[in-house]
Amino acid sequence: MFNNRVKIKALLASDETGHEVTVMGWVRSLRNNQFIALNDGSTNNNLQVVIELGQLDEATFKRITRGASIRVTGEVVPSLGQGQKVEVKAKQLDILGDCDAEKFPLQPKKQSLEFMREVAHLRFRTNTFGAIFRVRHSLAFAIHNFFNQQGFVYLHTPIITSSDAEGAGEMFRVTTLPATNPPLNEQGGVDFTEDFFGKSTNLTVSGQLEGELGAMAFSDIYTFGPTFRAENSNTTRHLAEFWMVEPEMAFYDLEDNMNLAEQFIKYIIQYAMDHNREDLEFLAQRLADEEKQLPQDKRSELGLIEKLEFVLNNGFERITYTEAIDILLNSSAYKKKKFQYEVKWGVDMQSEHERYLVEKHFKKPVIVTNYPKDIKSFYMRQNDDGKTVAAMDILAPGIGEIVGGSQREERLELLEKRMKDLNIPTEEMSWYLDTRRYGSVPHAGFGLGFERIVLFVTGMTNIRDVIPFARTPKNCEF
Amino acid sequence: MFNNRVKIKALLASDETGHEVTVMGWVRSLRNNQFIALNDGSTNNNLQVVIELGQLDEATFKRITRGASIRVTGEVVPSLGQGQKVEVKAKQLDILGDCDAEKFPLQPKKQSLEFMREVAHLRFRTNTFGAIFRVRHSLAFAIHNFFNQQGFVYLHTPIITSSDAEGAGEMFRVTTLPATNPPLNEQGGVDFTEDFFGKSTNLTVSGQLEGELGAMAFSDIYTFGPTFRAENSNTTRHLAEFWMVEPEMAFYDLEDNMNLAEQFIKYIIQYAMDHNREDLEFLAQRLADEEKQLPQDKRSELGLIEKLEFVLNNGFERITYTEAIDILLNSSAYKKKKFQYEVKWGVDMQSEHERYLVEKHFKKPVIVTNYPKDIKSFYMRQNDDGKTVAAMDILAPGIGEIVGGSQREERLELLEKRMKDLNIPTEEMSWYLDTRRYGSVPHAGFGLGFERIVLFVTGMTNIRDVIPFARTPKNCEF
Repeated sequence: MFNNRVKIKALLASDETGHEVTVMGWVRSLRNNQFIALNDGSTNNNLQVVIELGQLDEATFKRITRGASIRVTGEVVPSLGQGQKVEVKAKQLDILGDCDAEKFPLQPKKQSLEFMREVAHLRFRTNTFGAIFRVRHSLAFAIHNFFNQQGFVYLHTPIITSSDAEGAGEMFRVTTLPATNPPLNEQGGVDFTEDFFGKSTNLTVSGQLEGELGAMAFSDIYTFGPTFRAENSNTTRHLAEFWMVEPEMAFYDLEDNMNLAEQFIKYIIQYAMDHNREDLEFLAQRLADEEKQLPQDKRSELGLIEKLEFVLNNGFERITYTEAIDILLNSSAYKKKKFQYEVKWGVDMQSEHERYLVEKHFKKPVIVTNYPKDIKSFYMRQNDDGKTVAAMDILAPGIGEIVGGSQREERLELLEKRMKDLNIPTEEMSWYLDTRRYGSVPHAGFGLGFERIVLFVTGMTNIRDVIPFARTPKNCEF
Repeated sequence: MFNNRVKIKALLASDETGHEVTVMGWVRSLRNNQFIALNDGSTNNNLQVVIELGQLDEATFKRITRGASIRVTGEVVPSLGQGQKVEVKAKQLDILGDCDAEKFPLQPKKQSLEFMREVAHLRFRTNTFGAIFRVRHSLAFAIHNFFNQQGFVYLHTPIITSSDAEGAGEMFRVTTLPATNPPLNEQGGVDFTEDFFGKSTNLTVSGQLEGELGAMAFSDIYTFGPTFRAENSNTTRHLAEFWMVEPEMAFYDLEDNMNLAEQFIKYIIQYAMDHNREDLEFLAQRLADEEKQLPQDKRSELGLIEKLEFVLNNGFERITYTEAIDILLNSSAYKKKKFQYEVKWGVDMQSEHERYLVEKHFKKPVIVTNYPKDIKSFYMRQNDDGKTVAAMDILAPGIGEIVGGSQREERLELLEKRMKDLNIPTEEMSWYLDTRRYGSVPHAGFGLGFERIVLFVTGMTNIRDVIPFARTPKNCEF
């Protein structure tokens, strides 16, 4: 048995001394030929390991380089250095794995985030990415914890699908047919009956429709899995593969939906604040340092921690789409023609409009409801005005849309008519319509783009930096 | 706000009476024109709702059919019936959604599991599938809980990948190229530089290799996500899309790995026993009823609950592959030529052999270690005998392999040589080899097929019945 070690996070959390421990990790630095900063990924805080001058033979000593992995057994003693209560006085030190410090891509200097993306297989070993992915972990765990506590069933909706939930969006095709010379049918097209599933299949863009099937039995379900968009957009906010959380609740109307979404977002942020305070403080400092290079008016008004606390302590603003358009039309930005895109009832809001509402006008998260039906999906519940649907989007400062949801159309006739109007085949979707045929109920749900909330909580600005290995157009490394 | 209801599980858990509540759910039955069995999916137990004769107008009363959804407000009163402490005396009853009881596919009679697969969008509303998917939820939550408590980082490894972790296995291709007339290169093959990612990409068969990258920074990580095999095998144990849990631990050897895997499996089973006792008892009864139709010698020796308790209370047997082969060669089954497949050192064990070891010989879960290197993957740590690798498979009664794992080869030279021997391109896998170049450490990990453990815990026998919407050859419905 190899693993009889104590993790550095646990060791640093206690001020107990006098006992012997074994620690293992990677060398971050060696100072004065005597002080090793050792990290094992459990925390950004390094353990100070002290070796006495001359304690090690020269050959071993030379192998204690940045990036090398070591095992140390020694006594836990009070630390005289700043910032830690204890350190380990090495009795035995073994090199587990060497690291050529000159070739090691992670150099002890500031390296750009762009470069880090190229060495994404190693960047977890830096303070920034260590903090980001521990926070990401906590947010993911908090999501499961929140829904489990509330009696939601975690439903694994399918990844490979033959339907397109959103009725829109470019999709990735999944196939086992040969790329060259696939079998053809009599019309000269590809014969998908020969494909693995006997028909053309895609990667899912949303688990919602299948999620609704679960909600019609368990009352409350959620999904949390990967979703895909084959959109050729190279922005700091889009990925071809990303993780999405989609709760779906029977016996919910739009207001219930908003209440749950707000409570949910606050819960997971609070969870990270409670469990990752050191990581968030590190990321707050990183963000502050980064923003020092920006002109004053481009800097955030609040620091990262303050921003999160502000969200926790304030209700989200709730306005209708119609009110949002009115605010925009009456804004000085509109009057001074500062918006690039059109502002008009019936037209979807662009990022610049959303950011104006959130960052300039309300200065807090905003829930916009009751959008025009023509810019929203077929399954959203039609309002009595005949023009709008019971949709809700949650917009967050710096990020834009993080949640999109709605009350669903539970009335069979209205749903079928809407599908026909939009040329969505009701025959193929018969399984979906069955939920409206047999004991239909008012229900609602929303989708949260997981990476968007990770961006928001970590203060990072490029979505590629908050997912382990980003998939974007022309980029599928590792 | 619509959702001011109390869930039936919570209501039935208390014996408080005299207060007014609102409940919502689906009608399971109406007895004596007076007693409604109401279910909302929070538990298999129905709430009895009592209506007085003549309380409702005739039109409303007729709509209280099996499958219809209703909202009831009334007083919680002590129940005179058996099996429940309280019931609700209806004061107000509203039909939310009608259900034509004759057309409703779920009829109040025994319907086959095969038929239920055809109506998988509705089967969640039956007792059997309600229980299965609540247990599945608990097992999934227990997985996250276990690893979170132990300081593991949940790492979302990529789904779309350009590498094949296992060096084997048929894969699904992911593409946005047109199916007919894709762009060709000068050699007449498909020009993948025109594809979305600029190269040929597939759905992942395992997150392990990327998981190792995480473990080399965070010490302990786990994945829990969908994985894919494009194998044309129509068995009761294989799916084209399934969920897998893959922990990966730095500073672990094979024994540490076995210890963790055993502790992990026991933890999640215990969690389900603690949180889903009623569901498991229902499934135990279902299994016992089903097995009554089998001849005596085909029935399980232990009931479902007893089987799970047995696993919790006994250590897993640990034997080497070499010992396993010896046991098989000395078995009466072998001597009586009852095995269909060859038993010989160096040849992979078949399901019949694994089941013999687990079900006949040891009668408990067995961990088989140190397999011949030629039947295992390139990344497994080579033992000093030159013939075997530090692999481990966990075999479970009735299921066969539920866990496959190993200590990984951390020595760069040995790993590179093995890859070259197997014609695995080391250039393309340079990122993977970097973990061995820069601070390599002994490490290990395993993969648990999630549906396999759900099968084991629920006592179901077909894997299609424990995943919401199964994907198998020629089958991609819903």
